[in-house]
Amino acid sequence: MRYPHSFKTYHKVVSHANRGMNLEELINDANRYYKDNSIALISKKPTPIGIVSVKNENSKKIITKAFFKEQSTLDYVGVYKGYYIEFDAKETLSKTSFPLNNISTHQIDHIKGVINQKGISFLIIKINNEYYILDGNTLVSFINKEKRKSIPLEYIKKYGYLIHSKGLIKLDFISSLDNLIGGFHEKN
Amino acid sequence: MRYPHSFKTYHKVVSHANRGMNLEELINDANRYYKDNSIALISKKPTPIGIVSVKNENSKKIITKAFFKEQSTLDYVGVYKGYYIEFDAKETLSKTSFPLNNISTHQIDHIKGVINQKGISFLIIKINNEYYILDGNTLVSFINKEKRKSIPLEYIKKYGYLIHSKGLIKLDFISSLDNLIGGFHEKN
Repeated sequence: MRYPHSFKTYHKVVSHANRGMNLEELINDANRYYKDNSIALISKKPTPIGIVSVKNENSKKIITKAFFKEQSTLDYVGVYKGYYIEFDAKETLSKTSFPLNNISTHQIDHIKGVINQKGISFLIIKINNEYYILDGNTLVSFINKEKRKSIPLEYIKKYGYLIHSKGLIKLDFISSLDNLIGGFHEKN
Repeated sequence: MRYPHSFKTYHKVVSHANRGMNLEELINDANRYYKDNSIALISKKPTPIGIVSVKNENSKKIITKAFFKEQSTLDYVGVYKGYYIEFDAKETLSKTSFPLNNISTHQIDHIKGVINQKGISFLIIKINNEYYILDGNTLVSFINKEKRKSIPLEYIKKYGYLIHSKGLIKLDFISSLDNLIGGFHEKN
């Protein structure tokens, strides 16, 4: 499979375009496409760290000790047609359900906060080699209603939005988001 | 001046509540208040870093060398009544104008991108011991029209929105933002 030259700029390693990109790379790639084509402006937040020590090296500050902190919000944030968008990418090796221990309590609280402010918050879930958008509202209502520790794939298929590729975009989640926003499937 | 007990929780060092808080602390403080009172959900993005080396220590990953990267977006992002909000905090020692070299070209491009997606983007500028919201539209139009390298205080006073304290919030920028959103002053 060959790509036109313009597509190559989206990939440092062109051979990765076709397969082998992990979920984060697929999302970053889509976001780059959306940005370059003025479709949406979404970026990954930097990883939060706690800095322990810093030294000066050639008049530049160099971090010499730091540790990783847990992200209490979601990893991706942006704006699309005036909508506030915040989401996280999750994947599971299970082929039949998505374990809820993939999401921290902080993140669930944050999703509720975003919903409360009329923002759009969701998960992109990779399960069984498919990708779905699961709306924050759906997630919260599942957690409130069910006592189960994982969301069955059938539930995700029913209430989530499958993400397809479109043209050069391997993971065209904005098109699925349109369905969510427009209530296209009238699922919820 | 004394604060009720509930206010103390917003400050690690209570003596800072009254004076001496820097711009970032004032904004973080307001954001904490807005979050706790379900007024808005805004947070500071983590500082972006480039990680050079990592080691394992007691089965935890410790960063042993990293450098600071430039933020190409704005520092604060969040959602307020369905509005996408992104802004940066800037201060200048000049008492008469705000030098544009405080803002990187990347940040100006990003502001344009947010505007293009119908988000709200602005600067909080501390100048001459006062705080103003300067809308991204106003900033971009100044840069496009004027050849000057700094924005005169008079311009900021005329087209910006002064930020006041309100009750426990020292820097109540959401109230000023309401004016911007509602076009209350019909300035632009």
